[in-house]
Formats: sequence, C-alpha cells, structure tokens
Amino acid sequence: MSGETPITVIGNLTADPELKFTDNGAALAKFTIASTPRVFDRETNQWKDGTASFFRCAAWRQVAEHVAESLTKGSRVVAFGRIRQHNWETPEGEKRSMLALDIDEIGASLRFTNVTIDAKRPPAAASGDNPWDTGTAPAPAAAGSGEAPPF
Amino acid sequence: MSGETPITVIGNLTADPELKFTDNGAALAKFTIASTPRVFDRETNQWKDGTASFFRCAAWRQVAEHVAESLTKGSRVVAFGRIRQHNWETPEGEKRSMLALDIDEIGASLRFTNVTIDAKRPPAAASGDNPWDTGTAPAPAAAGSGEAPPF
Amino acid sequence: MSGETPITVIGNLTADPELKFTDNGAALAKFTIASTPRVFDRETNQWKDGTASFFRCAAWRQVAEHVAESLTKGSRVVAFGRIRQHNWETPEGEKRSMLALDIDEIGASLRFTNVTIDAKRPPAAASGDNPWDTGTAPAPAAAGSGEAPPF
Amino acid sequence: MSGETPITVIGNLTADPELKFTDNGAALAKFTIASTPRVFDRETNQWKDGTASFFRCAAWRQVAEHVAESLTKGSRVVAFGRIRQHNWETPEGEKRSMLALDIDEIGASLRFTNVTIDAKRPPAAASGDNPWDTGTAPAPAAAGSGEAPPF
Repeated sequence: MSGETPITVIGNLTADPELKFTDNGAALAKFTIASTPRVFDRETNQWKDGTASFFRCAAWRQVAEHVAESLTKGSRVVAFGRIRQHNWETPEGEKRSMLALDIDEIGASLRFTNVTIDAKRPPAAASGDNPWDTGTAPAPAAAGSGEAPPF
Repeated sequence: MSGETPITVIGNLTADPELKFTDNGAALAKFTIASTPRVFDRETNQWKDGTASFFRCAAWRQVAEHVAESLTKGSRVVAFGRIRQHNWETPEGEKRSMLALDIDEIGASLRFTNVTIDAKRPPAAASGDNPWDTGTAPAPAAAGSGEAPPF
Repeated sequence: MSGETPITVIGNLTADPELKFTDNGAALAKFTIASTPRVFDRETNQWKDGTASFFRCAAWRQVAEHVAESLTKGSRVVAFGRIRQHNWETPEGEKRSMLALDIDEIGASLRFTNVTIDAKRPPAAASGDNPWDTGTAPAPAAAGSGEAPPF
Repeated sequence: MSGETPITVIGNLTADPELKFTDNGAALAKFTIASTPRVFDRETNQWKDGTASFFRCAAWRQVAEHVAESLTKGSRVVAFGRIRQHNWETPEGEKRSMLALDIDEIGASLRFTNVTIDAKRPPAAASGDNPWDTGTAPAPAAAGSGEAPPF
C-alpha cells in the first residue's frame, strides 16, 4: 500500500480496549482515543480544555494483544497509524462513512506518569551508538571532527 | 510559536537517558532514538533491517522525569515532537548544525511487550464516550441515527 | 491552542472550492480532498486504486482566497493542517459528529504537472544558504570541516 | 520499505533546484528548504521570525522534473516525504552523517500567492463526490440521514 495518510493521535482511551480474534486467528483490538486540545481563554487568562476529538482505532496481532493487556479506560497513549475512511450501509440501506485509524504502533504515554516495561522484548535492532559519529559523547545525527554538540 | 515542523519518531533508545536540571530547576532529559526501517531484500526474498537513523531528543519537566525513571537503553518508544536545527560553534570557530527533536509527548511502545502504567495519574480530561454520537455502542466520530458502525 | 492533531493530506479536490466571507470580513474557503491510496493486487500483479478517503477542509483569510483563485475540481494538493471533530445537531435533535481539517498551509502538487507561481510574493524570510554550514556547496543541516555531503 | 519516518516540511527553497539524471536515466532534483517558525517576542509584543531549520531534499523522476521546471530560489513549498540519515566518509576518513528528506510529493504553497496549474494532468482518480454520503450538499466523511453538516 502506498499513498496512505499517516497520523499521530495523542489522548486517552474512552473505554477498555475490546479484543477479538478473526477467523484465521489474528488478534484485533478496537478502542477509541479522545484527544483534547488546550485552548487559552482570554477572559479568564487561563488555559482550559478545548473540544475533544474522538478517533476510532484498530490494532492487529501482537500490538493488539499488548494493547488489550496493558491499557484500560483512561490510559493515555501516543498512537501512530494511518487514517482512512470506512464505509458501510445501514440495515435501512443508508450509506455511512467515518474516518478511523489503523494503528501501526502505540505507546503508553509518559506525560503524567511512569510506566514499567515488561522484561520480554527482543534485542533492539539498533540500540548502539551512531557509528557514523566520531564525537566522544553520544551525538547521533551530528557530524564533526570529534566534538559533541553542546546540547 | 507557530510554523514548527511536527514529527513522530519510533525506535529504540541508544543509551539510558541523561537527566539534568536547569538553573531554574526545570528537569531536562536527553537521549537518542535509533529508528530502523525494514527493507525487502529481493535477493533473499526476506525483510531485513535497513539503515538506522539517529534522532537526538530533549524532553522537559514532568516528561523528562518520567523518561528518566521509565526508560533505559534499548527501550522502544513512540515519540512526538518538533524537529528543528541547532547551531553551534566549535572551539576552533567552525560553525556546526544538526537537526534534533524537542519532545512534546512520548510513550513506551507496545509493539513487542506489555507495560504496566503507574497508578499516579490525573483524571483523564475526556475519557467518557463521545457525547455527540447516538449509537448504542461506542462509535466516536461516527454519525448516524442510532446504529454503530460495524467495525 | 496546543495539543492539536497535525495531519498532511494529499489528494484531489472533489469540486471547486466554495468561498465565503464571515461577518467580520474574513475569507473562508471550503472544499473536500479525496485521497486515494494505491494498493497492490496480487491477482493481477499490478497496482490499482484503493478505497478513497474524503477529508472536508476549511482554509481562512489569505490562504482561502488563493485556494479559491488557484484550485478547481480535480486539482491535486498537498495540504497541511490540524484534524478535529465538528459536532452539530440535526433539526430533529440528533447529535452528529465528523472529523475535518483546518488548513494551515496548502500547495498545488507537482506530482503530475508543472505550476506557474504568481510574481506577487513577499521576500522569503530565509532563502539564503545555511549560514551554519561551512561547506563549499549548499549543504544545509550538515556539519563538517568544509566538505559538502556527497548527495 | 516499512517503518520509515514521515515528515512534512513547509518553507522556502534556498536556491534553484539542481536537476541531474542517474545512469539509468532517472531524474533527480536536489534542493534545500529553509523552514522558519514564528515566535512571539514578549518584549515587543510582536511575532518575529525564529531560527530557521534547513532540510536537504531529494525528489525523483516525474516529481523531480516538475520541481526543476516550476520552482526557483525563494519558492515556498509544502513538502511531504520521509526523513532518514545519510552517512558518508570524508576524504580524510572521518565519518559524517546528516538527516535529509526523500520527497514523496511536494506542492507550490498558496499561502502568499496564487499559482496557475498546467493543463497537462491525468484524470483525477477520485474527484467525484463521496458516494458514501447521502447528504444533499457535498459532505464527505459525514454520515447522516440526508442532512449536510452545517460547516
């Protein structure tokens, strides 16, 4: 697939995820993220919650299982996926459509709380320092003649 | 600030985060994310790791503290922020620059593992169902005369 | 406003943009982008159009006027904005909602055709070379002791 | 390829694009986008230009030719692509790296000016109205029993 629309949605689950299994045994987790922007109220001179947006999401396989086992109603997440339109017909024959998310990867947010990561995980593919950097301190994506960037 | 460049980076920490405090007491966590795409090798007919990209990141305040307490070398994350150029001069007077990330929000990935979310967290701003949807099942962002979307 | 959901949508206008003016004289352009992914058909071994997603968009002021004067039905665009939920009630009192885009900036795509840019435009804010790069050729965001990156 | 890092960069070309052709005849356009955020100056109570970020870009084939024929130094663009690290060695054997963009699609911005789109273009894949919407007015992505959303 190419030409899809990537999106990152940050917010809170409106309910516990629902876990199902397709006929061929693949796990599918469905849930909704409520994303609430902060708006500045000029009258009170304070920030307050704006209007929430609700994003219906679907995650598959391994990700679906971890979502179902790790997240509950209210959990805050950082979700990356592709947004696309789903179409269906009502029993009365009316055509309906809705924009929803296919999740590629999702994380438990560290904004308001700590998390404990389970020991089970594969050796990270690229967890070493940037071999293309000659700095004495970790300075990936920088280039130089030996100095690390001062930030 | 307006007109910044948002970005979502998914990958693994190359080392434990470094936590510092600025003169006015604000926490600052610095770390690097190695992001490795998967590429299809036509010779072996298999997917393999592509060339890693390294993103230098900075997180502030509450997020910085949670990053430092929750993540270690190898932790996989979904990070959302803004990418911008940092400029500096070497002691020899050479001008250097590098693209790096200011983190807005970051999550511990659920791709390969479960996480346990700490109890401490504020009541979610918008964790109820979508009040603008009259479906009998949770069907946010949908509209209809009472039916939930069938997915 | 903070905590909004940025998105980039690429596709074709489904109709000519509609231009209105608000009571205080601000231009508002409304239009819909149809975004069609390409999917690989394993039966025919060829790429074909997938299911289109339709994004309702609103652009304001100067951008709105340029959209109305430059784009027509079928025009292909690269649109950057923020996606959020709009809520309303039908005359019958039913609650409805929809995800739609507030456009920050939009461009006429160069994928299938050339465009001619009107002369009218302000002096670009930062159209000079990267002063933080000492390369002999334009090599922004690179760092080095004088050599340009070989790509 | 999967697991790449999508990004949208908005800004101005620092110079005319350079067009080359690879050995097998594919067009390749290289250029740099300077992206300048706006920051609010609390002292003067006004918005001003912030520090520019420079993004090195590469576009291929048809897109490359349209870029070279349509854009010049100072042209403002909305560019969508994938950011990844390029690595190389200097003649002295030093390892260097840089984050740069592979352009998927790019448009001439309508923020400050109109554009004229060339006649040459293929029939748009999906330029009709949303067939999944029964509204009387164009109301894509909405659903309902016949009413268009009031925005």
